[in-house]
Amino acid sequence: MPAQRTSLRHFREAYEEIMDRVKDSIDHVSEREVSGFVELLVKEKSRRILVLGVGRSGLIGRAFAMRLMHLGFSVYVMGETITPAIGKGDLVIAISGSGKTKLAITAAEISEEVGAKVVAITSFPENQLGQMADYVVKVRGRTAIAEERDYFTRQIAGIHEPLAPLGTIFEIACQVFLDSLVPELMHRLGITEDQLKRRHATIE
Amino acid sequence: MPAQRTSLRHFREAYEEIMDRVKDSIDHVSEREVSGFVELLVKEKSRRILVLGVGRSGLIGRAFAMRLMHLGFSVYVMGETITPAIGKGDLVIAISGSGKTKLAITAAEISEEVGAKVVAITSFPENQLGQMADYVVKVRGRTAIAEERDYFTRQIAGIHEPLAPLGTIFEIACQVFLDSLVPELMHRLGITEDQLKRRHATIE
Amino acid sequence: MPAQRTSLRHFREAYEEIMDRVKDSIDHVSEREVSGFVELLVKEKSRRILVLGVGRSGLIGRAFAMRLMHLGFSVYVMGETITPAIGKGDLVIAISGSGKTKLAITAAEISEEVGAKVVAITSFPENQLGQMADYVVKVRGRTAIAEERDYFTRQIAGIHEPLAPLGTIFEIACQVFLDSLVPELMHRLGITEDQLKRRHATIE
Amino acid sequence: MPAQRTSLRHFREAYEEIMDRVKDSIDHVSEREVSGFVELLVKEKSRRILVLGVGRSGLIGRAFAMRLMHLGFSVYVMGETITPAIGKGDLVIAISGSGKTKLAITAAEISEEVGAKVVAITSFPENQLGQMADYVVKVRGRTAIAEERDYFTRQIAGIHEPLAPLGTIFEIACQVFLDSLVPELMHRLGITEDQLKRRHATIE
Repeated sequence: MPAQRTSLRHFREAYEEIMDRVKDSIDHVSEREVSGFVELLVKEKSRRILVLGVGRSGLIGRAFAMRLMHLGFSVYVMGETITPAIGKGDLVIAISGSGKTKLAITAAEISEEVGAKVVAITSFPENQLGQMADYVVKVRGRTAIAEERDYFTRQIAGIHEPLAPLGTIFEIACQVFLDSLVPELMHRLGITEDQLKRRHATIE
Repeated sequence: MPAQRTSLRHFREAYEEIMDRVKDSIDHVSEREVSGFVELLVKEKSRRILVLGVGRSGLIGRAFAMRLMHLGFSVYVMGETITPAIGKGDLVIAISGSGKTKLAITAAEISEEVGAKVVAITSFPENQLGQMADYVVKVRGRTAIAEERDYFTRQIAGIHEPLAPLGTIFEIACQVFLDSLVPELMHRLGITEDQLKRRHATIE
Repeated sequence: MPAQRTSLRHFREAYEEIMDRVKDSIDHVSEREVSGFVELLVKEKSRRILVLGVGRSGLIGRAFAMRLMHLGFSVYVMGETITPAIGKGDLVIAISGSGKTKLAITAAEISEEVGAKVVAITSFPENQLGQMADYVVKVRGRTAIAEERDYFTRQIAGIHEPLAPLGTIFEIACQVFLDSLVPELMHRLGITEDQLKRRHATIE
Repeated sequence: MPAQRTSLRHFREAYEEIMDRVKDSIDHVSEREVSGFVELLVKEKSRRILVLGVGRSGLIGRAFAMRLMHLGFSVYVMGETITPAIGKGDLVIAISGSGKTKLAITAAEISEEVGAKVVAITSFPENQLGQMADYVVKVRGRTAIAEERDYFTRQIAGIHEPLAPLGTIFEIACQVFLDSLVPELMHRLGITEDQLKRRHATIE
């Protein structure tokens, strides 16, 4: 798309803003946290995994759950029909930018009560979800709860408005982050794309 | 994350590959197609919108549907509980990388029968979904149906494996593309982030 | 199906048990509670309604939500994509046989915090959900939390097993109860079946 | 609920109508068809099962899928996140009152193409879904496509209106029918309610 046109200016600025911020977000993910998460997944391959998140974070979680299924994991999504008993030693991956989403926290609390390990993916490890989790991966974003005026804004009617409203940065950064884990997991588990394809839904 | 470490090499390569490919994909989206899509949405603001897609494309569609709701559109998602009658003049946004997903095509066909306008978001406008649609936005990706050996691969056990398996590029490019439309729509409709927030789900 | 055959005995006994117990359950629903619920729905027709429930109770809720939509209500389902802000004066219908389901309780708590009215449909109004609700309809069932030995059992390997395991009775009684409200609401609102049909999803 | 009151008359008439019609519907289910379906499930216990249906039929299917999971089956629901490849020898249970729902038919067609066996649960085995299925269980209902004036109606503004609008009878009859299969399957497979409970979702 030629950059010189002036129409779609907000679209183009938003696109650049999103790409820059997502890059910045993932560049700041801790190598130690990623390594630990990958090792947890590889080590606990035989355990059940429950992915949970509310709203758009839940959609990101589902997209990752699909890939985990393609990789051969026994993975489920909270709130869907086929969600079996989760118990001792199972893994719960909870996604919440703010780390304050009540339904995610309640679900994480029950997870801990039944003996599952909770991995929190959040921008604010200091908030409730991160504090209760056994394991945290911090993925920066300007989440929906950000109060401060962000610098990446543009003006609407004289008011600076963000180019990536609400949880956009966290959500896309999360999706890119989780999708980037897939080739790492393929490598560690010795799984080829053909094997992913064979587990991909056929009735669609 | 410091680049010099050698562990997580596949993760880092995948991340870079995804970002490069997504950038490349969106850079190639036609300005004319984007403008037309934006204008259609703005002009038909009062019409019902049904978003449909299967698998991960469906999740991307849902994430966009949430934002359309925040923007004040009457938007619904195929397959969910609250999906009303769609009819003459309504808008159907169908997302399919390959443009060959049968359930998406069947739904698009019914959409046309009842008089709705179909917008296809796809990598292959020449395939069935694109051909039947009233309006197409092409978003490049290496979709799940790609047969040819892609160049962005890495080796697993001596075999070149893609760093962004299956529909990854299309899906993330779509998500970034659709999220970049949001500030453009905010601008055109004069909607602020506070207004988005007020429509955001409160019970979560 | 002729009754004299001996195969499918458990199927037939279960079917009779379910029908008897469901009839018994609905016969015991309080006329006052039903009238109040109907009047609430009719009076608050213009308010948003959010239906919530976990597991099979959630499915019953969705089936009722579809009919409320056909009746012209602005109704949404917790956990689905298009769930807008719920606030002061809106109506939340929470379904839980036990009245102890934590995610339903958390959601009901948030509902109260934002000023919505909570209607609980439950077998145990004395439990947490019923206690916090503004309005309760008691629908008897042998719910999943029943501890006592039920009398409607049959023997498996010498052990008495229920013919309607877990929440079956509550769930079917609820579904019949809620579906029986539909003609009552049609009558009160002057809505014909043709009007229901016109709101029924067309793309399926 | 005392029968002598005149308020809630439509509710009470609808309730009686539903119970009578559901009983009539299940009494007419063919013993041979039920036996065959039960034997298929027992014999193919190790195969994957995909349950599919659109709208309220889909919700009935999900409720049954939950019980199949509690019984130890590998069962999935079309349209949800974790739906793996279905292939040769797997079982697809398709629910459609009319047997004409296009998305259900498309999915059933793909199922046959990939070599799965299709079981249709429908009121009209002579329609497309029943005709393509390998196995049919007919469950009577007055489905949404019924054109003729039904006798179980009441008057709204001088017009006879059904007490069980659209697919109500089929849906509830299906739910009771499928739930009545559960104790039969428990018996055949030697599964107790405690075993069901142990597989029941814990995080809710």
